[in-house]
Amino acid sequence: MGDSPLVRKASGFHWQGVEVLKYKEEGSAPFKDVTRQVLFEGRDPPAQLRYFEVAPGGHTTLERHEHVHSVMVIRGRGQCLVGDAAHDLALHDLVSVPPMAWHQFRAAPDEPLGFLCLVANDRDRPQLPDDHALAEIERPLRGQTT
Amino acid sequence: MGDSPLVRKASGFHWQGVEVLKYKEEGSAPFKDVTRQVLFEGRDPPAQLRYFEVAPGGHTTLERHEHVHSVMVIRGRGQCLVGDAAHDLALHDLVSVPPMAWHQFRAAPDEPLGFLCLVANDRDRPQLPDDHALAEIERPLRGQTT
Repeated sequence: MGDSPLVRKASGFHWQGVEVLKYKEEGSAPFKDVTRQVLFEGRDPPAQLRYFEVAPGGHTTLERHEHVHSVMVIRGRGQCLVGDAAHDLALHDLVSVPPMAWHQFRAAPDEPLGFLCLVANDRDRPQLPDDHALAEIERPLRGQTT
Repeated sequence: MGDSPLVRKASGFHWQGVEVLKYKEEGSAPFKDVTRQVLFEGRDPPAQLRYFEVAPGGHTTLERHEHVHSVMVIRGRGQCLVGDAAHDLALHDLVSVPPMAWHQFRAAPDEPLGFLCLVANDRDRPQLPDDHALAEIERPLRGQTT
């Protein structure tokens, strides 16, 4: 955060001096139109608060891991898959992704989905589903949402 | 968060099943018109994400402590004092309060100030200024802001 205690939001969902990063390396895992910005990181608590933005029609990687995600939507709307259920997401909704739950965030077709995601600094690498798991996992995204 | 991974925002800045708490016990320290809601708490990371809302014209306690605050404004506008400078705050601005910096959040006269505040679970108790310290600390709030 540099010397000033204040980091102002700039135009759009960008912050002064905060770099807009790739979500992941291209080809490392399937995803579409996602950016990442690290808003806070430190040792007190040993955690990062990141801002992810999924462009209209885009989605994060479908994955699972031992570490927990604590999420708040701060822009737009979309949907999340967590475990065996899909949920519509609106502004300021909260999502807790428990350990080893398959999860994915999708923007609405006509609106971005921007969310804060709190994670521990010390965390395990995500696992990707194989084709068989994928067919099972994606079922709720084709059916009813809550 | 109960069994569902989702906690929807209800009307206003309230969330389903999240209790609106007193900021502090009345009389324990000076403050005016502040509420507190705990949005996430857990061991991974060992931290809490709280939502504080200061009503128009209200303010949090002027205090300091060893633990760090990481703050994002998500409603309205106001001002913060951190160390020896006061700053105007607008939507989505970020504030890092370093260890032992005197700090206070104030809502605008005509608008609330609502902000997320990330803290470690294990944290020291706030210290209050004596009258002499108070006069020195409050100087920047009477002068120019950045």
